[in-house]
Amino acid sequence: MSTVVALSGGVGGAKLAAGLAAVLAPDELTVVCNTGDDFEHFGLPICPDFDTVLYTLAGRANPLQGWGLAGETWNVMQALDAIGAENWFQLGDSDLATHLFRRGRLQAGDSLTDVAMALCERFGVRHAVWPMSDDPVRTVVQLAGDGGELAFQHYFVRDRCAPAIRGFRFEGIATARPQPRLTALLAGRATEAVVICPSNPFVSVDPILSLPGLRNLVAQSAAPVIAVSPIVGGRALKGPAAKMMQELGMPVTARAVATHYGDLLDGFVLDHADAGDAAAIEATGVRVLVTDTVMTEPEKRVALAREVLAFSKQTAKRPPT
Amino acid sequence: MSTVVALSGGVGGAKLAAGLAAVLAPDELTVVCNTGDDFEHFGLPICPDFDTVLYTLAGRANPLQGWGLAGETWNVMQALDAIGAENWFQLGDSDLATHLFRRGRLQAGDSLTDVAMALCERFGVRHAVWPMSDDPVRTVVQLAGDGGELAFQHYFVRDRCAPAIRGFRFEGIATARPQPRLTALLAGRATEAVVICPSNPFVSVDPILSLPGLRNLVAQSAAPVIAVSPIVGGRALKGPAAKMMQELGMPVTARAVATHYGDLLDGFVLDHADAGDAAAIEATGVRVLVTDTVMTEPEKRVALAREVLAFSKQTAKRPPT
Repeated sequence: MSTVVALSGGVGGAKLAAGLAAVLAPDELTVVCNTGDDFEHFGLPICPDFDTVLYTLAGRANPLQGWGLAGETWNVMQALDAIGAENWFQLGDSDLATHLFRRGRLQAGDSLTDVAMALCERFGVRHAVWPMSDDPVRTVVQLAGDGGELAFQHYFVRDRCAPAIRGFRFEGIATARPQPRLTALLAGRATEAVVICPSNPFVSVDPILSLPGLRNLVAQSAAPVIAVSPIVGGRALKGPAAKMMQELGMPVTARAVATHYGDLLDGFVLDHADAGDAAAIEATGVRVLVTDTVMTEPEKRVALAREVLAFSKQTAKRPPT
Repeated sequence: MSTVVALSGGVGGAKLAAGLAAVLAPDELTVVCNTGDDFEHFGLPICPDFDTVLYTLAGRANPLQGWGLAGETWNVMQALDAIGAENWFQLGDSDLATHLFRRGRLQAGDSLTDVAMALCERFGVRHAVWPMSDDPVRTVVQLAGDGGELAFQHYFVRDRCAPAIRGFRFEGIATARPQPRLTALLAGRATEAVVICPSNPFVSVDPILSLPGLRNLVAQSAAPVIAVSPIVGGRALKGPAAKMMQELGMPVTARAVATHYGDLLDGFVLDHADAGDAAAIEATGVRVLVTDTVMTEPEKRVALAREVLAFSKQTAKRPPT
C-alpha cells in the first residue's frame, strides 16, 4: 500500500486535495496542511487552511467565497456587531462550532492532530488531513518600508493584503516538530509522490517546508516531488501570491514558482497559459506537465488530480545534488 | 448622593435588581454579582449571574427560561450537536457574542470589571453592575456520601442539581480581592442600604460575603443590611435553594435563611406566606417586613423594590455586637 502526500494551504490546495481524494482511497492520500495561518480569535483556535481542506473534502465548503461553510448563518457575528465587538474576521455560526470543538479538545489535552482526526471523523472525511505540526507556528508578515510587521490574519483578512511586503518569518518554526506521522511517512518507502498543491508558495507551502528537517526529508524521500503552479497567466487564481511576487521583486510567472522551490522539485505542473515557461524549467532538470490547471468546477479537480498522479508515476526522483 | 448596594445571584436577584433600577437613578444603585458560578466553557469565560443581571436590566432577558436572551437563536448549538461536541451547557448565538467579547477584552488585558462596564454600556444598562471580584472564585459543590466534588456548573446545569450535597467551598476565595469599588463604597458614607437579593444564600450570596474582609465591611458599614428571602412557603421560587437546605439538615423556611445570615442582618423581608416566621426573627433583633415577594410580573419587581427601599429607610443599623 502506497500513499500520496499532498502539502496544502487553503482554497487552491483544498481543491486539488479534493480531486486527489476523489480518485485515491482513504489510505492512499495524506493531506498535510499549513498551520502558519492559524491564530487565536476571541480565545478560539482557528486553523483556516485545515478548516478549508476539511470543509472542502467534506463537500461542505462555501462554493462562492472560497472559505467557510456552505449555507452558513451569521447570528453570532450580528450579535458581535450589535455590541461593537471586533468584527474584521468573519465567524459563521457553524464554523464557530468547529473552533469551539477544537478549543474544548485542546484544553482537554488533545493535540492539534488528535483534534484534526476527530473533526475529519465527525465531518465524514475519510482521508487523512493533518496539521503540519502540533506545535504553534505563526506566519508574521514583514512589511516594506518602515520595517513593521503584521500577524498573518491581520495582514490577510483585516488589511486585505493591502500593505506591501518584504518578507515573512515563521514564529516558532525553529522549535516546531514536524507532524510525526508525516516524517514517518516520508522516511518510509510507502510514499509514492509528494504533491505540492497550487497554494501560495510563501505563506502556505514555505511554512511546511521550513519545519526543521522537513525539506531534507522530502528531498531525500524515495518519492518524486511534484508542484502545481498557483500562478496562471501571470496571476494568482486566488489570494495574494502574485502581489507578493511583485513586491519581492520576482517575475510573476510559473517559472519563478518553480525556481522558488528549486532543487526540491522533480516535476512541475503548469497551465497551458504558461506553456512558454516549460522549456526553461525543463532545462533545470525538472520534468514539466502542461495542462489545464484551473479548477473552476469539481470535475476539473478530479481531472487535474488524475493528470498529476499519472505525471508523478512517470517522473523519476532526481538523485540528490 | 447616596447609593444602594445590591448583592445578587442570577434570576431572583436580577428581578429585584431590575426593580431597584426602575426606581433608582443610575448613580443611586450598584449591583454586585456573584462570580462563583463563573466558568470557562470551550475556553470562553462565562459569567452566568452577571450576564443574567445584565440581560435583565437591559430588558432583554428571556422571560420564560430565566436565563439567556429573549429571541435567542441556537445555530451554533445545532452545529455543535452535529459534530458531537459537548452540549450540556446551552450557548445561544447572541449569548455567545457576549462570551466572545468578554474573552477578547480579558485577553487584551481588561479586568472582569472593565468588561462588565463595557458590556453595560453596549447593552444600554446605565446602572453599575459589577462582578464581586476581578479575581477568579469558583464554587465547588461537595457531595454527600462518597465525598466527591463537582464544579458548580456541572452540578447545576449538567447534573440538574440531582446529587445530594453536604457543603460548598469557594476555590480561590482566600486570595480573591473584593471589587475595589465595592469596598470603597462600603467603607465610605455614601451607601444608604445593602440589599441582599432573593438569591441562593449558599451559592449566590455566600461567595460574595466570603470574600476576605467583605462580611466585616458590610457589617461595619453605616448602611442597614436588608435581605429578601428566596424561600417562600417552604419552597425556593427558582433553583435548588430549598433542596440544598434539606440536604444540609436545615428547615426549609424563611426563618432559616435569616438565621443563616445571622447578625449581619438589620432587616429581613419575607412573603405573606411566611408571616408565621416573623415573630421569631424579630426576637433576634432583626426588623421584619412581611409583604408580597413573588415577582411574577415586572410591576411586582418595582413594587417590591419600593417596599424594600422604604423599609431600609425605617431600619436602623444595629450596633456591632
